[in-house]
Amino acid sequence: MTTTTTQPETTTTNIVEESPFLKELVLQVRAQDHYGVYRTWKDELVLANFVVSREKKSKISVEGDVDPATQLRILCFYRAIAVCIEKQTGKLCQVVTDLSHEGFGWAIIWTGRLIVLSRTLRDAQRFGYPSLQKLAAQGERLVESGLKSIEKFPDAADG
Amino acid sequence: MTTTTTQPETTTTNIVEESPFLKELVLQVRAQDHYGVYRTWKDELVLANFVVSREKKSKISVEGDVDPATQLRILCFYRAIAVCIEKQTGKLCQVVTDLSHEGFGWAIIWTGRLIVLSRTLRDAQRFGYPSLQKLAAQGERLVESGLKSIEKFPDAADG
Repeated sequence: MTTTTTQPETTTTNIVEESPFLKELVLQVRAQDHYGVYRTWKDELVLANFVVSREKKSKISVEGDVDPATQLRILCFYRAIAVCIEKQTGKLCQVVTDLSHEGFGWAIIWTGRLIVLSRTLRDAQRFGYPSLQKLAAQGERLVESGLKSIEKFPDAADG
Repeated sequence: MTTTTTQPETTTTNIVEESPFLKELVLQVRAQDHYGVYRTWKDELVLANFVVSREKKSKISVEGDVDPATQLRILCFYRAIAVCIEKQTGKLCQVVTDLSHEGFGWAIIWTGRLIVLSRTLRDAQRFGYPSLQKLAAQGERLVESGLKSIEKFPDAADG
């Protein structure tokens, strides 16, 4: 099992190449890399901070503010989902995340008048997935669910 | 004209009583008054900070963060709209505001899968209306527009 590994980037080779979602996520993170720190890094390493083992999670306090880097990571995650949906539907998607000081809040993706995806966030301080595979799977699942809601409510999506 | 008055609470008597929106807004503000500072205040005085004259606006810098009190005022404004819509439709409405450090951002009200209201915010540091009358009119107008979008997309609103 990869759920407890602390060096996930060594367990896989081509995972980013195989996942359109992870590819988009890498782009989102690199777009925030204003000083070129990640320029020479491999994609897997760029995503390394999205992987948080169960042990590591339990050590992160949920008291107090969410670390700005974690906030940005959450925003990148939902923006990558939004871009994947955009690419498949041609509809412009907007993303908003709203976190309270206690790590509770919302992530919303919408297009036109339609909420494509709405998720409550909690313990946002501990945001992360046990492995890149699980991260990819969750991203793709949310993209799928967004696409389905656009199919279901095309009028609102165009509204 | 009331656009330049700096003591708006003295220009009217029963404006809050006459506006369901303002009544709701007073409740929202009082709900945040954890120390009972406003307990003995008249409703008009409780809303006084929502009135910002043009001159006063021009003196508020849009450099840097939005004052937390202003952020809370913006949230109260949209929550009051949401509650008015809730009362007239019976549909639970959620509110999210998302402000960047530069005072730009979004205010979103949604119910079910439907965006009831989405507004871009800018120069949020200067949030305010020239008079209580204008504040009431704008609030009521946004409530109306929200009700119309629920009428237009009932499926998404129930989705």
